[in-house]
Amino acid sequence: MNISFKNILVYGLGLMGGSIVHALRKKNFNLSITAIVKDKIESNAIQKENIVDTVFADEEFNKQSLWDNYDLILFCLPVHLICQKIQKIPSTYSGYITDIGSTKSEIIRTIEIKFPKVHNYYSSHPMAGSEHTGLKHANPDLFKNKLCILTAPQRVSDPAKKKISEFWKSLDMVTFEMDAMSHDEVFSYLSHTPHILSSLMVIWAYKNLTVSKSIDKCQIPLSGGGFRDMSRIAGSNPDMWDAIIQLNKEHIHKSLVEFQQNLSDLIKVIDSNHSSETGFWKSFFGKAKEARNRILKLKDE
Amino acid sequence: MNISFKNILVYGLGLMGGSIVHALRKKNFNLSITAIVKDKIESNAIQKENIVDTVFADEEFNKQSLWDNYDLILFCLPVHLICQKIQKIPSTYSGYITDIGSTKSEIIRTIEIKFPKVHNYYSSHPMAGSEHTGLKHANPDLFKNKLCILTAPQRVSDPAKKKISEFWKSLDMVTFEMDAMSHDEVFSYLSHTPHILSSLMVIWAYKNLTVSKSIDKCQIPLSGGGFRDMSRIAGSNPDMWDAIIQLNKEHIHKSLVEFQQNLSDLIKVIDSNHSSETGFWKSFFGKAKEARNRILKLKDE
Repeated sequence: MNISFKNILVYGLGLMGGSIVHALRKKNFNLSITAIVKDKIESNAIQKENIVDTVFADEEFNKQSLWDNYDLILFCLPVHLICQKIQKIPSTYSGYITDIGSTKSEIIRTIEIKFPKVHNYYSSHPMAGSEHTGLKHANPDLFKNKLCILTAPQRVSDPAKKKISEFWKSLDMVTFEMDAMSHDEVFSYLSHTPHILSSLMVIWAYKNLTVSKSIDKCQIPLSGGGFRDMSRIAGSNPDMWDAIIQLNKEHIHKSLVEFQQNLSDLIKVIDSNHSSETGFWKSFFGKAKEARNRILKLKDE
Repeated sequence: MNISFKNILVYGLGLMGGSIVHALRKKNFNLSITAIVKDKIESNAIQKENIVDTVFADEEFNKQSLWDNYDLILFCLPVHLICQKIQKIPSTYSGYITDIGSTKSEIIRTIEIKFPKVHNYYSSHPMAGSEHTGLKHANPDLFKNKLCILTAPQRVSDPAKKKISEFWKSLDMVTFEMDAMSHDEVFSYLSHTPHILSSLMVIWAYKNLTVSKSIDKCQIPLSGGGFRDMSRIAGSNPDMWDAIIQLNKEHIHKSLVEFQQNLSDLIKVIDSNHSSETGFWKSFFGKAKEARNRILKLKDE
């Protein structure tokens, strides 16, 4: 497999940008990669490591306005910075553009305002990540067999849709198109609100005095695998998640209130003593197992 | 390392009993292992596989009352069955006894009624498991470097405490003593209620129509690693968890209501728009990360 691009600009070299660079290198595609990083200190460090062909500090790149040198621009930044950078693209730019933003409404709104005519910006959300962030955790196989969600702004060209889809497929991703609203609603349920619930859970558990005292006395963790798994995402980067939550507030609020309502209903059943009836919890957990199998596309064992 | 027992009776040969047998065999201890399984069909099957030295169907064992042949009895059964079997131990039995029950109050109550004088029953909760159950998933390394919680009923002898602790250490476990009440309170926070929350979460997510429709259309799972981890325990055995919840109702109810209260408080903050203030979510997620580091005894990265 080959790709249609010859000069790629990776704007931002954290976990995602870095992993994209490593993945492209591993595939041995014949292309030149330029990266933009925060400042001169970082760009000097990266120059030495020979990760990319060219590296610029953000300020340096902006002074020179070299956009036209690249046939693909990949914004690998937090969503609010992606939206800032979109404003700076020259209106004469004729290459292709995408991003890796994990909420879509704000980005799509910004693109649609920026480009009143046919354009080549097709937005992406590669569903790959880690609780670790930063270039040092970048991994060439991060995207392998993972899903990349694509979101079409109004007036995006067909070639852009085709070439950017093919770009992700060339990194062994599976692509799936969703509109911005559905994307943000679905991921409030499958990612953002679960993240809040996981975080609330660890805070709630540690607040209990018997829990915290027992933990302090025991030489290894008291919790088993279930709690460790459920709390993994609560160990993620607080800054990154602050930004994600701010950008999908409405959907998160709605789904969080809905969870609270479901929890109240469950507690009512427990209070009314119906949960003591044979089969209540068995049927509740059976329903959960079935829902999990559907969501994760597992066959029942 | 060697162990003080020569004739072990493993009462129940599911994931836990089977893993104990495999672990003892792997250690090459010089001992004879007898297992008790549900019925004749199972005992015939296990006899062929040569997993243990002797195997009995439950009914067969009870007819002959062979308890005195064993110097250690390990109840590897669901808690309500452990409590039933405790009643059947002859009062003349002089060997050592333990179990692997994951809630303690009911078991300790049963032991204390059964043994009005000094006795050798020291209750255990090896913190090892899997979302899979049954002998076919048994694993000799299941206990390695894991925690085994020990709970002392009234009147348990010092030799029983010593020998049963050593038994688990010989399987490379770390031991920690907790009273029954603290155990059941702590695990409502670190296991049982999180299990309910994980299950409620998958049911809640799949109920959303945009979620379920998008999942049906997409060829691979839409959810990322965070959701998969958080939902793992919702895929566990519904029967087993029905039993666990029934046996720790009071603590689970209290902690579930507390979680609901914490969630309501969080939603109030969101509603009052305080969460839009710079730093609210960052500080919330930072607090969660800190609590998680404490619970899992991780160093901050």
